[in-house]
Amino acid sequence: MLQISKRGSAMPPSPIRKLVPFAEAAKKKGVKVFHLNIGQPDIETPKAMIDAVKNADFKVLEYSHSAGNESYRRKLVEYYHKVGIEVNHNQIIVTTGGSEAILFGFMACMDPGDEVIIPEPFYANYNGFAVSAGVVVKPITSHIEDGFALPPISAFENAITPKTRAIMVCNPNNPTGYLYSREEMEVLKELVQKHNLFLFADEAYREFCYSGDHFSAMRLEGAENNVVLMDTISKRYSACGARIGAFVTRNQELLDAAMKFAQARLSPPGLAQIAAEAAIDLPDNYFEGTKVEYKKRRDTLVGRLNAIPGVFCPNPGGAFYAIARLPIDDADKFCQWLLESFSWKNQTVMLAPATGFYGTEGLGKNEVRLAYVLNTNDINAAMDCLEKALEEYNRV
Amino acid sequence: MLQISKRGSAMPPSPIRKLVPFAEAAKKKGVKVFHLNIGQPDIETPKAMIDAVKNADFKVLEYSHSAGNESYRRKLVEYYHKVGIEVNHNQIIVTTGGSEAILFGFMACMDPGDEVIIPEPFYANYNGFAVSAGVVVKPITSHIEDGFALPPISAFENAITPKTRAIMVCNPNNPTGYLYSREEMEVLKELVQKHNLFLFADEAYREFCYSGDHFSAMRLEGAENNVVLMDTISKRYSACGARIGAFVTRNQELLDAAMKFAQARLSPPGLAQIAAEAAIDLPDNYFEGTKVEYKKRRDTLVGRLNAIPGVFCPNPGGAFYAIARLPIDDADKFCQWLLESFSWKNQTVMLAPATGFYGTEGLGKNEVRLAYVLNTNDINAAMDCLEKALEEYNRV
Repeated sequence: MLQISKRGSAMPPSPIRKLVPFAEAAKKKGVKVFHLNIGQPDIETPKAMIDAVKNADFKVLEYSHSAGNESYRRKLVEYYHKVGIEVNHNQIIVTTGGSEAILFGFMACMDPGDEVIIPEPFYANYNGFAVSAGVVVKPITSHIEDGFALPPISAFENAITPKTRAIMVCNPNNPTGYLYSREEMEVLKELVQKHNLFLFADEAYREFCYSGDHFSAMRLEGAENNVVLMDTISKRYSACGARIGAFVTRNQELLDAAMKFAQARLSPPGLAQIAAEAAIDLPDNYFEGTKVEYKKRRDTLVGRLNAIPGVFCPNPGGAFYAIARLPIDDADKFCQWLLESFSWKNQTVMLAPATGFYGTEGLGKNEVRLAYVLNTNDINAAMDCLEKALEEYNRV
Repeated sequence: MLQISKRGSAMPPSPIRKLVPFAEAAKKKGVKVFHLNIGQPDIETPKAMIDAVKNADFKVLEYSHSAGNESYRRKLVEYYHKVGIEVNHNQIIVTTGGSEAILFGFMACMDPGDEVIIPEPFYANYNGFAVSAGVVVKPITSHIEDGFALPPISAFENAITPKTRAIMVCNPNNPTGYLYSREEMEVLKELVQKHNLFLFADEAYREFCYSGDHFSAMRLEGAENNVVLMDTISKRYSACGARIGAFVTRNQELLDAAMKFAQARLSPPGLAQIAAEAAIDLPDNYFEGTKVEYKKRRDTLVGRLNAIPGVFCPNPGGAFYAIARLPIDDADKFCQWLLESFSWKNQTVMLAPATGFYGTEGLGKNEVRLAYVLNTNDINAAMDCLEKALEEYNRV
């Protein structure tokens, strides 16, 4: 019989997108849905990026270099210098979104059956890249009571097996918003050095830190060969649709291997590289405005959440996500119910059940992730809905 | 010790790009290099595509649907209808180049250790996607004496094992330019039906057929569940840098699996989808001009090649490639020598050694691939160089 692959069957569906049909049905009924479920910022993409594409002068939209346009990589060196990361343009491979940078890292560092340790809850698509690469994610639980701080070193040590090849952190974290401190990063450095592991650092939200500075894994001295930065411009410049990321490492052997994956797919998107290159010349204060806005939203969201009886939400230090514990029995059921059976003043709210972000079965059942990508008025209206919804949900 | 993966080591480097440093050195010496080595067309990207991006009105460059913008997929249905392929927009997943369509197909249809049969010589990057997916390419040799026609059915039957999951054809073919006939496609249909295999059809060069019509694998009646079309706009509209392709199948189970891979990487490039959508509205005669031009180039190239003593080049029916047998000992050595040690009137030519397109070690040693992506004046000048080079090479 003609059959798809076991890998194709094992590939996880998006835990966020499975509720989409219920949101669409709600909208068809005329209910306004506040989308706190997905990290699509409403911030405008800088005009300078779009204008760069509009003003570009070319006759043939040719393949770029497989590592990305050299002019763009040289500009990226400037950007990284500004954020305290010293690399040269040959240590950067421009990728199709951060997604491809993660895939290249998984493929080039790990073989089927190998293991990568990731603190949970974690970005759900890591599971998809793991299945693609045939590697196993070993989750280490971080806890809402600790604000999702780095789990103790002993938890990592206990999880390390002969098949462990890497530790992966997202900093600041999606989905928890937790901002890892320099001290926590140094602990990870010692761990990867001691056990000869790669340290995969997803720093997609580097620019969005509200309680302290970001400390990049690329700044860990002595771990130059261990650290792989998986980067993206998606959130930095509100340019998710561009699909431009970067795979950055000082490990030459790994760079050479990743380049072969890059060559196989020929080149990253050409038009978007023009936009991305223009972004580097944005004024240095560009991020200040967005950061102020996100911080205001965070404060609004977290304040409102913790004022609801039975709700607990640690204050996230970065990114634009928060995980809240709700007085509910089942987050998946509740999030579907919000869309299917609830509305208040003809409005409802779409949240992401946290279950999809945990690797350990059964965790996150009374937690949801909220992306504060809406203005504070909408966040307040969404919180009004959530407050009413929790009252009603627990009555029925 | 910190080590990259076996997969990263096994990943093949691009056989075409390995000569690039020698071409760069030649150029530094002031030698003009005619690039017949790579399929980067010199045809201008249609202005309507570029203008569509320049005129697009949006504030936020958002993620698109993981399957690609619905508006673009609906337009693609029109395009496919015009070329005799009847599909609906839910049977199309827009991909990041044809490359990603191939990767999705390999990932969703085959597991590590599974086998795909491909007539050789074949597009070298299939090897890279095979290594990424952990699958094994089983080459079936096609021969220059037959113009690289489909190998006899017995060769396929002999290569089929319990691990065989798919047969892959590129039609018209890169690197041979061979245009498979309807009869040959029907033979493949019977084969995949008999053995419950997928039929992967790479039809990147569909528009470029000079001796007969193209018969798409998607038109094979009764094999709807077997056929997977891996498509791209790169060559069709001379938009290689856009990175827009398509994964097309009527097999619902496979579509569902491929969608999970598409969701993991979020979305295909956004700006380029705008350009691609505009391309569908190009006038119906758009391809006539390019086809006439390519046919003229092919006739020039093949005519000149066969006029050189000891050279044989079958007349390719499509695409913009030809493979020629040269009176040489070692194509890799010769192609490097052309760049390193030869010039005539301060000019030389860059060719792709055919060895990189064969899966069987030792084949193609006296063959090269030529991409006729230059105008006829340049092709003539390049052939002047090649003629002189062969005289000189065989004297030394």
